[in-house]
Amino acid sequence: MRITAVHETTLPIASAMRNASIAFDAMTGSALAIETDMRLAGAPVVGYSFDSIGRYGKGGLLRERFLPRLLAADARELQDADGVLDPAAAVRICMRNEKAGGHGERPGAVALIEAALWDARAKALEQPLWRVLSGIASGQPAASASIATYASCGHFRPGESLDELQAEVTRALDAGYTLVKIKLGGDLNEDLRRVSAGLAVTGPLRLAGDVNGVLDGASGETWVREISAQPLAFIEEPASPLDYLALARFCATSKCAVGTGENLFSFDDVRNLLRHGGMHPERDLIQIDPLLSYGIEEFIRILALAGSMGWSPRQFFPHAGHLYAAHLVAGLGLGSAEAAPDASLPWGGYWDEVRVRDGHITLPDWPGVGFEGKRNLITPLQWWRT
Amino acid sequence: MRITAVHETTLPIASAMRNASIAFDAMTGSALAIETDMRLAGAPVVGYSFDSIGRYGKGGLLRERFLPRLLAADARELQDADGVLDPAAAVRICMRNEKAGGHGERPGAVALIEAALWDARAKALEQPLWRVLSGIASGQPAASASIATYASCGHFRPGESLDELQAEVTRALDAGYTLVKIKLGGDLNEDLRRVSAGLAVTGPLRLAGDVNGVLDGASGETWVREISAQPLAFIEEPASPLDYLALARFCATSKCAVGTGENLFSFDDVRNLLRHGGMHPERDLIQIDPLLSYGIEEFIRILALAGSMGWSPRQFFPHAGHLYAAHLVAGLGLGSAEAAPDASLPWGGYWDEVRVRDGHITLPDWPGVGFEGKRNLITPLQWWRT
Repeated sequence: MRITAVHETTLPIASAMRNASIAFDAMTGSALAIETDMRLAGAPVVGYSFDSIGRYGKGGLLRERFLPRLLAADARELQDADGVLDPAAAVRICMRNEKAGGHGERPGAVALIEAALWDARAKALEQPLWRVLSGIASGQPAASASIATYASCGHFRPGESLDELQAEVTRALDAGYTLVKIKLGGDLNEDLRRVSAGLAVTGPLRLAGDVNGVLDGASGETWVREISAQPLAFIEEPASPLDYLALARFCATSKCAVGTGENLFSFDDVRNLLRHGGMHPERDLIQIDPLLSYGIEEFIRILALAGSMGWSPRQFFPHAGHLYAAHLVAGLGLGSAEAAPDASLPWGGYWDEVRVRDGHITLPDWPGVGFEGKRNLITPLQWWRT
Repeated sequence: MRITAVHETTLPIASAMRNASIAFDAMTGSALAIETDMRLAGAPVVGYSFDSIGRYGKGGLLRERFLPRLLAADARELQDADGVLDPAAAVRICMRNEKAGGHGERPGAVALIEAALWDARAKALEQPLWRVLSGIASGQPAASASIATYASCGHFRPGESLDELQAEVTRALDAGYTLVKIKLGGDLNEDLRRVSAGLAVTGPLRLAGDVNGVLDGASGETWVREISAQPLAFIEEPASPLDYLALARFCATSKCAVGTGENLFSFDDVRNLLRHGGMHPERDLIQIDPLLSYGIEEFIRILALAGSMGWSPRQFFPHAGHLYAAHLVAGLGLGSAEAAPDASLPWGGYWDEVRVRDGHITLPDWPGVGFEGKRNLITPLQWWRT
């Protein structure tokens, strides 16, 4: 099984929304398609990947460093003992002559390549990706096609009222979600109003609040004390992502679970989070996004490290990641998959045939990730065919 | 003073050498030239910057995100109260809608823009950059055109013997350096031989050893104990750059100074190094590279933080950085500038007219960085003129 062509493009995914730290007016994401010489049912096997949203496309790095290394590799270097494309080998090749440290854009570029190769590999094995991942690591919980999922809503849009926030949360509940996360801005009084408005719709422990790392110092501790006294499922990213000392203070203050990690992109950084961040393995949540963090092999190393420090895979709620992350949640026995509930977006919702019921979805039987089963996502991924 | 054009290119800077972690066969670096509408002596003021070596060019990120934001900014947003280009304002504009965390390639791309604007600003003020930086921060040591510098040598080249290592170190001493750093590989016995060979040429405390972050665990502690018992000026990067716990163990074990930081690219990451890395402010060395770390404004924030934790600017030995870093050492009162001693390389040595004497250089009076005073560096920086 050999790579015959790679198609890479950057898609505009602009939106008028904001979170507490950035606007999404000029946001982009990368799409990758890796063609192979293997044929199934008369067509070549193609592996796809699509970016997580929020840190821009990785096209420059893909074209400058990682795709040239991938395409220069000997075909056998990229294969396992059975001749099937081996995503882990591709990551090792992509990372040749890369210095340690500095995990910013690079982990996202490498993860996109790994993800497309996982899609191709699972298709070659004629299995859904989650089943290929089942049992891949030691001490893994049982894999299951049924997973928990939660809805991420409540971004800031110009002129939006609390009524509109409640309407958006209601739509998520109506769509079958039982846990809804809303954005908070860091102003205590305003955020208490938003939390009250959300809880009025969801009921207790079915709402979470994401403040996108903007809290600091004594006012941050006050915010955490007051907001965490509300019946929230969790508070997300109270501290700036690399300020482990501030995070440890907020974790000690919080009366509810704390989630963080979406802006850490490597084993190295998560190790520091677990060592220095003061998080509680029996309560708190790790939200590393495998699509932005070198991919599945790195994620499995992270799970093993966390396991040795008392963390269950169930405490991992990967950030974003759409269909791809859902497979990791299913295959690796993670806690819950984050969803943008608006399925009219390429990165929103799940497969066309899948419905959320009681906060869970059942992954369909498409081989690989099954991008082919979500029409508004497979279409942009196949731009190169026309 | 307005930007009229930006010229950006990626230069191949391949070399057959290795350090303990990577080969440099396919290394690249970015070169940037920012033209302005200000004229001095009949010619437009142009600000230049040139990459630090080792982490590849930043062309993709510059073209995708940072240069478009810079060029879209209102001219007045980029000026100080006197109408002169303000590098700090440019960094704020470049970083709009960038999420926190993930300091990898982005800090290098932004630093290149900031550096070219500092060159343009200092030229507009008709001063060498170091003098513009003098007194820019509170509590800064006195600036001086005379600075300490040290030579970085002893990369691994295929088939090279200890005789050749000694010859290279001797050439650096003959060129006027009094402190020479050599690469070590992490194998204790081989490294003891390299250190002995180096010390036989330099004499005690005039040799340092750089192991590029490859040590780990108990064998790493043994290495540090044995190598630091030699009369070395310092040991560089014993631990993987983000493994602060391992670094703290090595710092506790070492009998000589420990330097590290060249693979941390932000205030956020250095704060963790200072909090968790177990380094000794009165002994150890911080080697953050401003050209890879968002530039001078971020570096000044780092100096202020370090100062509050007991660190003198003299303990900062910035990684690489050629002529640009020499200005920071002079203007901000840092300890020593690292030099690749081979002045035939664009990023080696200093200005054509400058000689190293007794481990020091005196910066010349060129306005800005004075790239114009190093022929083999200004030529590639002016590729767009032809």
